[in-house]
Amino acid sequence: MKATLLHGERDIRLEEVPDPTIKSPTDAVVRVVAACVCGSDLWGYRGIQPTHEPRRIGHEFVGIVEEVGADVRTVRKGQFVIAPFMISDGTCPNCHNGVQTSCLKVSGWGHPDREGFLADAGQGEWVRVPLADGTLVATPEVPDAGLVPSLLTLSDVMGTGHHAALAAGVGKGSTVAVVGDGAVGQCAVIAANRLGAERVVVMSRHADRQKLAKEFGATDVVAARGDEGAAAVRELFDGIGADAVLECVGTKESMDQAIGSVRPGGTIGYVGLPHGVELNVPGMFYRNVNLHGGVAPVRAYLEELLSDVLHGSINPGKVFDLNLPLTEVAEAYAAMDERRAIKSFLNIGSV
Amino acid sequence: MKATLLHGERDIRLEEVPDPTIKSPTDAVVRVVAACVCGSDLWGYRGIQPTHEPRRIGHEFVGIVEEVGADVRTVRKGQFVIAPFMISDGTCPNCHNGVQTSCLKVSGWGHPDREGFLADAGQGEWVRVPLADGTLVATPEVPDAGLVPSLLTLSDVMGTGHHAALAAGVGKGSTVAVVGDGAVGQCAVIAANRLGAERVVVMSRHADRQKLAKEFGATDVVAARGDEGAAAVRELFDGIGADAVLECVGTKESMDQAIGSVRPGGTIGYVGLPHGVELNVPGMFYRNVNLHGGVAPVRAYLEELLSDVLHGSINPGKVFDLNLPLTEVAEAYAAMDERRAIKSFLNIGSV
Repeated sequence: MKATLLHGERDIRLEEVPDPTIKSPTDAVVRVVAACVCGSDLWGYRGIQPTHEPRRIGHEFVGIVEEVGADVRTVRKGQFVIAPFMISDGTCPNCHNGVQTSCLKVSGWGHPDREGFLADAGQGEWVRVPLADGTLVATPEVPDAGLVPSLLTLSDVMGTGHHAALAAGVGKGSTVAVVGDGAVGQCAVIAANRLGAERVVVMSRHADRQKLAKEFGATDVVAARGDEGAAAVRELFDGIGADAVLECVGTKESMDQAIGSVRPGGTIGYVGLPHGVELNVPGMFYRNVNLHGGVAPVRAYLEELLSDVLHGSINPGKVFDLNLPLTEVAEAYAAMDERRAIKSFLNIGSV
Repeated sequence: MKATLLHGERDIRLEEVPDPTIKSPTDAVVRVVAACVCGSDLWGYRGIQPTHEPRRIGHEFVGIVEEVGADVRTVRKGQFVIAPFMISDGTCPNCHNGVQTSCLKVSGWGHPDREGFLADAGQGEWVRVPLADGTLVATPEVPDAGLVPSLLTLSDVMGTGHHAALAAGVGKGSTVAVVGDGAVGQCAVIAANRLGAERVVVMSRHADRQKLAKEFGATDVVAARGDEGAAAVRELFDGIGADAVLECVGTKESMDQAIGSVRPGGTIGYVGLPHGVELNVPGMFYRNVNLHGGVAPVRAYLEELLSDVLHGSINPGKVFDLNLPLTEVAEAYAAMDERRAIKSFLNIGSV
């Protein structure tokens, strides 16, 4: 089969790799229908995270189950399934607590599983899925092709935006600011609205992203950044700031902007993978700024968000503004790297 | 009147200072019945926080209202009142949000208020209380002398322990670890029990403090510290850690111990004034460790906790293990500095 490998800085290649097969009785083999490129994939692509040897890449995909191992109970051949961005068994204490990203048997796509067998990455034609019962969620029936983009966001960005909103305690009547206008930030806007926020400010300098955020329910836009941006957010909310700030970037600058935008006693829901984040702990202490979140356990939210996608009450698939075949995966990366696309969709197979 | 001044490292003196009088129509003048020494007072006493000129000290006191300004509505002459450790107006947006420590007119005992007049500190015979309506809470009637120690803890340590537990999300069935066996840690044990925790582990190496924590409802004791202590806490809870960890110290070591003791997806309620705390943000991110808390808005909790003290359902006054007259205030500090006392009570006037 064909699969994507990252060879080094800005060097993405589609190559022939072995077809996956069942290795353990808890495995499934999935034919990929669609995958996508994540903002976090760009850390390796840009060389910020070094690549020592070529590696399989991609952790967001949906597809059709083609084969299951003898012990698999919750998915069967022919079903359409959504794969969260991490592999979990669904049975350990952390999974029971809804923190599947800390599963005691956690592993990641493109890496060896706990038995030492490679779990294929998502940006390829087929994937061997370890711990299929814990990991995969099947839709009630095979969906229309038009629903695939929104279903694919449940692999990562929609669940991650939801995690930010939930972690920040967004509820009925909350005032919210979203730092980050990428795919996760956009999904955080959807999530904040879905949880009943009264007002949602998106911080964005880009007209197209501002427009999308408004379609998703943002009520206000703040184009300024840094201290000036934070002051503008505080001004919108009694001079004190928003109840909840959803930090969807993960840099020192974005975190500082979040801390400056939240009201005393408010909460930052942070889901941007932190790079070089240093927190001003005393500054947070004196204002009772809470920091909640982390790597999103999207598996915990999958059934709930799936229901909303299937009923059409949310349409997060709109975050994809570039649709390419797998053969053009290198362009899918380049477009996101150069900010020509918010998020690239890879059309791999038919439903 | 007599009041306590900090002159420099380990130099505490009782001196004659001017009697307070009403300066603003929102003031009250209170005759102090009891005050106490706070762990945070020791930062200055030990010279870790330098003293550039002699300053009034003490931020925890209770007393009898002797005079009120023309605009004071909620307290009157003759009432017994509890003063929280910060001054707030009770009317600004942050006060309405229950974050009185971020009141837009906040000031502190022993410092000038927002009009530039000194608010006397608590370790003295009399105090001018600015913004009396927002700041003070009166008991329904003048209490028996035996209740005074527990009422005095509502100025700070009991409210602070409660803030830690509330911030960490302690509720019915929670598993809890408390880092710190001082007065705040002890009160955090009370608070965790009061909120319905199923199991409360206190981390303490001192037999007398372990005993007191057990009286307050601790179910387990872990004497080990650092990584070893955190591993012992994890072992008690499915190998993953406690739902909630109450960090009541504020050093890098105590915070690391807290981070190591909490389960993935769990929350650290932190109330120890942070000194040199550096957080391992990526480590927290990957385990979804939440950090909630800050300087406790004890004013927000005063009525609720007061009711429990008056009904005898909590008895936090037991944290005082040294009772001295104001004339021995220097010894009150020395005993805490040398760890001969958990917390020193200053008996200043009659109820």
